[in-house]
Amino acid sequence: MASVRAAVIVIGDEVLSGRTHDKNLPYIAETLSAIGIGLGEARIIPDDPAVIVRTVREMSAGFDYVFTTGGIGPTHDDITADCVAEAFGVPIGENAEARRRLEVHYADTGLELNAARLRMARIPEGAELIDNPVSAAPGFRIGNVHVMAGVPRIMQAMLSGILPTLKGGAPLLSISVRSPLQEGKAAESLGKLAQAMPDLSFGSYPAWTSTAFQLTIVVRGSDPTRLEAGAAAVESLIRDLGEVPERLGDS
Amino acid sequence: MASVRAAVIVIGDEVLSGRTHDKNLPYIAETLSAIGIGLGEARIIPDDPAVIVRTVREMSAGFDYVFTTGGIGPTHDDITADCVAEAFGVPIGENAEARRRLEVHYADTGLELNAARLRMARIPEGAELIDNPVSAAPGFRIGNVHVMAGVPRIMQAMLSGILPTLKGGAPLLSISVRSPLQEGKAAESLGKLAQAMPDLSFGSYPAWTSTAFQLTIVVRGSDPTRLEAGAAAVESLIRDLGEVPERLGDS
Repeated sequence: MASVRAAVIVIGDEVLSGRTHDKNLPYIAETLSAIGIGLGEARIIPDDPAVIVRTVREMSAGFDYVFTTGGIGPTHDDITADCVAEAFGVPIGENAEARRRLEVHYADTGLELNAARLRMARIPEGAELIDNPVSAAPGFRIGNVHVMAGVPRIMQAMLSGILPTLKGGAPLLSISVRSPLQEGKAAESLGKLAQAMPDLSFGSYPAWTSTAFQLTIVVRGSDPTRLEAGAAAVESLIRDLGEVPERLGDS
Repeated sequence: MASVRAAVIVIGDEVLSGRTHDKNLPYIAETLSAIGIGLGEARIIPDDPAVIVRTVREMSAGFDYVFTTGGIGPTHDDITADCVAEAFGVPIGENAEARRRLEVHYADTGLELNAARLRMARIPEGAELIDNPVSAAPGFRIGNVHVMAGVPRIMQAMLSGILPTLKGGAPLLSISVRSPLQEGKAAESLGKLAQAMPDLSFGSYPAWTSTAFQLTIVVRGSDPTRLEAGAAAVESLIRDLGEVPERLGDS
């Protein structure tokens, strides 16, 4: 799989309760994958300081990059910045540049920059700000950890600002081949194929529509020539089992 | 929050790559919440034996219940059962009852019960089977870990079979109050309210539609009387700040 590996930490009771359906994880996964960074793990954790601190430390040590979403707003349950500071063992205080950005934004919108909103200028010492073109309150990067908002359009704007600073690997390419083959019928030969071509990965994804069964086999790899060879082998495997393969869009 | 706590482990490269958007996590969260079991954490992990074994051990030790989804099909990347056996330090082999169910199912459907499909009868020693009314291949429970399929309709059928065996706590109830209040304006008084009523949780969820800003404050707690008091306090807080609260459906 990808040689550069990232982890995502989704912070928020509202996702764990099922109230909010997280949309950030698939977006981050797809965006990073396009520049050759593979997601190695994602964790969805509660607004609990001990869990946030421990998770940030573990993921920061285990992955090339870490991205967090959520918990950087103005309310009492927005504790991500303080927890990340604690995870890195650095003090946290009001960041002058972050405060300036909030002042400009709130002057523009005519809203009061009260004490609660000023909490959003609290940034761990030594962190670099991440721009927020939507609502000013910045995210930040400290070490390999990127702290972003949870609101999807703000998170997406922040991530697009971060992207040029990330060092990706060879992008992971994929070809999908679909057929009405039963997964259990394909499993043995697909397992052998996966062993014979260990530089590629072969994922097998069954699905049922109301009228038909479909199996999509996704071949992934970094080398286009090998990828094509893998996809051709899958197509041949499907034909050998008496079905007609249909190649879907490459990516 | 809930006194009985569960963790979910979503197993599958396809979710981490962003290719498959997981729908199981919110379904499990809502279903468990209704019987007083709160999700404490969820992890999305790759088809990697070392990560699966480590994660199952950690979550099994840290939570009352653990639910895994994915990786119990017939293909080479379906390694969940073997990894869970390793996590519990027990042998794994063909389970006679699981094999019998597969034989009946495949005889009915006229498909061949080949070696790959028979892998689905591999169950850790000492585990109890979890019924799969959709496609026969069972899940299983060992210790506090429930191993379920990744395909949503199979997972949902398995979970409904498990539910009567779970011991829930007092169900967590919630009341949502919506208003056009800015989150930053509400933050200070909401923080004080959360301190004054520590038996309730107060979540604050801002959203923008194309035409308007809306803040939903969700009060959660187990005691209906206290919950009502908390919701009334939120409504009064919103009125004090010059906006009109709208109470959404209770749950």
